[in-house]
Amino acid sequence: MNYKMVFYILGRVFGATGALMAIPLVCAIIYRESVVPFIIPMAICLLFGILLTHRMPKKRDLLARESFVCVGLSWILISLVGCLPFILSGAIPSFIDAFFETVSGFSTTGASVVSDVEALGKGILLWRALTHWIGGMGVIVFLLAILPLSDLKNIRFMQVMKAEVPGPTVDKVVPKIADTARVLYGIYILLTFLEFVFLVFGDMNVYEALNHSLATAGTGGFGIKNDSLAGYSAYSQYVVAVFMLIFGTNFNVFFLILTGHFFRAIKSEELWWYFGIVASSVMVIALSVSSISSSSEESFRLALFQVASIISTTGFATADFAVWPVLSQAIIVLLMFSGACAGCTCGGIKISRILLLAKNAKREIKYILHPRMVKSVKLEGRTVDHETIRGTTSFIIIYAGLLIMSALAVIAIEGCDLVTGFTSVVSAINNIGPGLSEIGPTANFGGFSVISKLILCFDMLAGRLELFSILILFSPSTWKKSF
Amino acid sequence: MNYKMVFYILGRVFGATGALMAIPLVCAIIYRESVVPFIIPMAICLLFGILLTHRMPKKRDLLARESFVCVGLSWILISLVGCLPFILSGAIPSFIDAFFETVSGFSTTGASVVSDVEALGKGILLWRALTHWIGGMGVIVFLLAILPLSDLKNIRFMQVMKAEVPGPTVDKVVPKIADTARVLYGIYILLTFLEFVFLVFGDMNVYEALNHSLATAGTGGFGIKNDSLAGYSAYSQYVVAVFMLIFGTNFNVFFLILTGHFFRAIKSEELWWYFGIVASSVMVIALSVSSISSSSEESFRLALFQVASIISTTGFATADFAVWPVLSQAIIVLLMFSGACAGCTCGGIKISRILLLAKNAKREIKYILHPRMVKSVKLEGRTVDHETIRGTTSFIIIYAGLLIMSALAVIAIEGCDLVTGFTSVVSAINNIGPGLSEIGPTANFGGFSVISKLILCFDMLAGRLELFSILILFSPSTWKKSF
Repeated sequence: MNYKMVFYILGRVFGATGALMAIPLVCAIIYRESVVPFIIPMAICLLFGILLTHRMPKKRDLLARESFVCVGLSWILISLVGCLPFILSGAIPSFIDAFFETVSGFSTTGASVVSDVEALGKGILLWRALTHWIGGMGVIVFLLAILPLSDLKNIRFMQVMKAEVPGPTVDKVVPKIADTARVLYGIYILLTFLEFVFLVFGDMNVYEALNHSLATAGTGGFGIKNDSLAGYSAYSQYVVAVFMLIFGTNFNVFFLILTGHFFRAIKSEELWWYFGIVASSVMVIALSVSSISSSSEESFRLALFQVASIISTTGFATADFAVWPVLSQAIIVLLMFSGACAGCTCGGIKISRILLLAKNAKREIKYILHPRMVKSVKLEGRTVDHETIRGTTSFIIIYAGLLIMSALAVIAIEGCDLVTGFTSVVSAINNIGPGLSEIGPTANFGGFSVISKLILCFDMLAGRLELFSILILFSPSTWKKSF
Repeated sequence: MNYKMVFYILGRVFGATGALMAIPLVCAIIYRESVVPFIIPMAICLLFGILLTHRMPKKRDLLARESFVCVGLSWILISLVGCLPFILSGAIPSFIDAFFETVSGFSTTGASVVSDVEALGKGILLWRALTHWIGGMGVIVFLLAILPLSDLKNIRFMQVMKAEVPGPTVDKVVPKIADTARVLYGIYILLTFLEFVFLVFGDMNVYEALNHSLATAGTGGFGIKNDSLAGYSAYSQYVVAVFMLIFGTNFNVFFLILTGHFFRAIKSEELWWYFGIVASSVMVIALSVSSISSSSEESFRLALFQVASIISTTGFATADFAVWPVLSQAIIVLLMFSGACAGCTCGGIKISRILLLAKNAKREIKYILHPRMVKSVKLEGRTVDHETIRGTTSFIIIYAGLLIMSALAVIAIEGCDLVTGFTSVVSAINNIGPGLSEIGPTANFGGFSVISKLILCFDMLAGRLELFSILILFSPSTWKKSF
């Protein structure tokens, strides 16, 4: 293990986190709130940042496992530092609760332990939304985007991107990896700004619009009102719904559109499935909730908002789907698993993974029928290599294993009903936020015990980093010296 | 498609089914019940049997897909013929209900539409138990065991065995496939007889003991009392529990023991996992139900019986686990998925498949850590070939897809709660019988609508035949002429 290089990168991560805390600090100053909750963690970040990065290591090579360790440790560290503002401000005095809230923030889950969100300070709420935004695209991808080029030589950053960017494969949109990171962040900032502009034209003030754009962009779901977005105008709800869907789209699509390749962009197979799933789910749910809403426009809006929120794994709510007809609930649970596209900020299994698995299964049946006529699996018009298929099937098996073990543990510890226990884990591992039954959109995770919260924290991080980066931290062979 | 040969085999299946109906016929004669419900279907079987087998086709080759088609069609046909006794006797007048009951019988599920089992005639009850016994080992394997050797030449019966015998791979216990079928049926009959002997020494009469041994042997679960086995003595419950576990064991183990290879038999990796899972589940459930039982012996017996019943996918009950503490329910649901060993009469995913998937996933993590140190996956001390791993992962994906689609459809049609809808499909696809909530051990499937019953019939057959034989009947390319 190249510890020197790992520590160096962790130092950089500390620095970046500290720098980003300046945003809620400024907000706190504007609204004349206490600045201490931000100054202290910033000082800690600065200290560790300087200590760990004062000398650039000579050997800058990172093996695959070292990249994964870097990413895994970074996310745990920023969650430990990131929970300090909650504790210091008194917003969430308990360490475990604050840690849960921060992991939920960075992992873009949006599951909260806070029952009265409106009582929190404006700076704290902005930090809460900002964790979503940082976690959405990934903190190391952020580093890649802002680091000077001389730092980047000889480091296999493709591995790091793979570990942090969701999806079965990572497309380099441009040849150089640092440029890819910059392009991704450029699109990310542009889209966030666009949503902000649309929102300030509605019934949100600048502060509210900023918070909601940051939380939507990261597909997080922390709101600033106790009823999430139910109290805002239909216009704002439509804007947020559309942007949730946008942030669930593969960023390659936007890159292609921005560079003038519109027709190549809309040829994406995953994109069409995404639209198809959203459209059919909205239709079925709109029909199924029509009896409990006042107009067909309202049914449509409720269905669209909730479907967009769940499939993009954001977790905002304008209705309590835990009390909807059971068919709608079943669809919501399925959408929780699917997630949206690869290469976006959302969680879940991702549509392209499901497509890949379905196509592979279909090929397998064909293989039994006509052993001599086996064709390769194609996705987006390209042949998928054997390695990716193998990796994807392993992903699903490990994912299912983690889900089952966690759900069993939570049910055993909480003694809650099956639906609560199961959906709490489904919601955590897929980075959504709300579940069903006792943890529906109107409820929160405050009542869970410490151990359940830690299990869910683990699941949220494992889900956000697509399992491997977190799991290998717990594999003994990662820490063996000689390889 | 070699239709002549397919029809010939179907004719043989008709013949065998008709012959086996002689058993309940004799029972009906002894108890002076009407013989019409058995005579008519036997005549139909005889007629079709003679019509379809009067000439042996010259071209006896069966392609892989033709073998699967044979198996799939056979099971649908015997269910259509097998439901006639229920209809003709007036026990279950509705065709769909009778068909559901028969599919549930042959697939060794044991889910019933009958609320008052004790009101049925003795001949009918015996036929019901016998369907389990026939379905347990497979009707075509039965044919293989009884057909004269001259019939078998040039037919690739290995494919048929693969399609009908549960598990990721089929071990030929002896070199010739027909001998393997005979050995399997020999062990099957021996074990059934042993259970019968043990049971008549307890508080069951000969008729009751016969019924319960047949239903246990097929890991089915149709009982002859409304409270399943709750009313029998502790001795009988222990006997049935132990034999449920025995029929969940890979028959290779018994073959090895019978041929004097005791130590090779108990070296089986799957066997030890099986014991481990049973022991730990019994322990946890016994502790968790200790508050609702009168003695620790009773807690142990309740836990052992229910664990044995669910993991072997039998479905007998001595307690209503739908009202147990939620942790016990969660374990029960997990056991529903796992099933017991490959190469036995039980349903479910099978422990060896889960082992294979877990080992493969572990290898995949290792691969990421140390790309140059990849080892092959070993099971039972042997390297598992790539084909088997690929087939197993595809199996799981298709299994999950079928489960999700069916559950969604049942929930949509019935409007039942999530747990009822989900566990009804889990129970059907894994060939167990009872589920949770509205379809727990004390309830039945009579209230479901026609379409839901058909979906569950499909799932039961697909589960019993491990998906492919049933799925390819619905694949257009199966029926294409030229290949």
